[in-house]
Amino acid sequence: MSKTVLVVYAHPEPKSLTRTFVSETLQTLESLGYNVLQSDLYSMNWKATFDEADFPSRANSEKLMFIQESEHAYTTAQQTQDVHAEQQKLLAADAVIFHFPLWWFGMPAILKGWIDRVYAYGFAYGYKGQGNRYRYGDGIFKGKRAILSVMVGGPNQDYSPRGINGPLDELLFPITHGALFFPGFDVLPTHVVYGTGKVEPDRIKKELRSWGVRLEHLFDEAPIPFRRQDSGNYEANTLVSHLATDKTGLSIHIDD
Amino acid sequence: MSKTVLVVYAHPEPKSLTRTFVSETLQTLESLGYNVLQSDLYSMNWKATFDEADFPSRANSEKLMFIQESEHAYTTAQQTQDVHAEQQKLLAADAVIFHFPLWWFGMPAILKGWIDRVYAYGFAYGYKGQGNRYRYGDGIFKGKRAILSVMVGGPNQDYSPRGINGPLDELLFPITHGALFFPGFDVLPTHVVYGTGKVEPDRIKKELRSWGVRLEHLFDEAPIPFRRQDSGNYEANTLVSHLATDKTGLSIHIDD
Repeated sequence: MSKTVLVVYAHPEPKSLTRTFVSETLQTLESLGYNVLQSDLYSMNWKATFDEADFPSRANSEKLMFIQESEHAYTTAQQTQDVHAEQQKLLAADAVIFHFPLWWFGMPAILKGWIDRVYAYGFAYGYKGQGNRYRYGDGIFKGKRAILSVMVGGPNQDYSPRGINGPLDELLFPITHGALFFPGFDVLPTHVVYGTGKVEPDRIKKELRSWGVRLEHLFDEAPIPFRRQDSGNYEANTLVSHLATDKTGLSIHIDD
Repeated sequence: MSKTVLVVYAHPEPKSLTRTFVSETLQTLESLGYNVLQSDLYSMNWKATFDEADFPSRANSEKLMFIQESEHAYTTAQQTQDVHAEQQKLLAADAVIFHFPLWWFGMPAILKGWIDRVYAYGFAYGYKGQGNRYRYGDGIFKGKRAILSVMVGGPNQDYSPRGINGPLDELLFPITHGALFFPGFDVLPTHVVYGTGKVEPDRIKKELRSWGVRLEHLFDEAPIPFRRQDSGNYEANTLVSHLATDKTGLSIHIDD
């Protein structure tokens, strides 16, 4: 059976570089024979704000507690239709591709709100109602792959290992490790185009070709070797002391 | 003249821990004699999504380019009223306090959307129309202070220097360094309450007292010593090679 790929994207302008990449993605995936699902967040008018409207039937009408209501709505099948539909797409997908421009070193709010709302308790966290037992390499998305395709206005150098903005991979760690690896995805290295403020047509072609090659290897490229919670690398949720002794910060959670 | 403090918060439930802290903040700031401004994003029904509605009068009606339209709207005083009002509060403030729960290792979408929309080109970036000349310690908010007050569901250990989630300060670096220090704020160390899933009343009291002490020192506490772009620490936007030789990743941008 052919694979299914979900493409989630967050830019309203069809002529934007982000959307040019989305078009390349859709064409390439179809040419590769995959089933393609889409979440065009802007055209869907995706509701970004996670609020009481997400819980039409409340477990506790006196006090809005998000985790409790999220679990209640999810387990009693009383979520909103838009959230349910996105969860079904995620479950159907063998891989998920996120296309977005980097805004203030993170996702546009509309995409953050997709994570906030779709990632229900019992689904993307508290899987099987068991708190943090299934996370970081295990969880509902285990066996699926995910990749970010990010458009960055600034130059590569500013995001290099000692660049002034910080390394892009570390700025995106809350997404790759926190929002993707946590619920079980194998996360591929982020695909980045820098300097998108001014891009010559020749470079666009070249960048699209590079991205096309990544897409061709979507299911055989090695994922980022984030350390799994159940790998024995952690004791009491802390990295054991003999590992990554030469590094500090976020990168200690990558086993290279 | 007494100082002015802007309190921006992102939780819709008045009985939530986040809002309990907001109440403490408002009371304490008033008792200290400060002028207090508020942005209660949920009650304001803040529009999270940055889109074409942000540009009622377009520079280019054929293709929506956010930076170009943001600059145009800002410099020609044609921004939406809600964005303009927030910018005026920021300009009036001597300090800004952000209260929010950590959702998927970052801000709730409604707060990210406040950054996305309020931080116009010419205002929070591209200051004085001069690209990246004024950033990281210089910019429109120079001389102002900012602090995050964050409610975290998980335990402290998971966010410790070698904790499985990554250190909280590094997960928040895109906000503290990227969204606050970049446009010129002096950023105070983040105030965190962990384990907010279940908090006994006694601990709440204790945590509120700790926070109250932080507030009393809002204008005299030492900020995080992020390295300034104009400090001589960077050459070609890259940290010079003799600095922070014993560290990797984001923390090299802190001069401790």
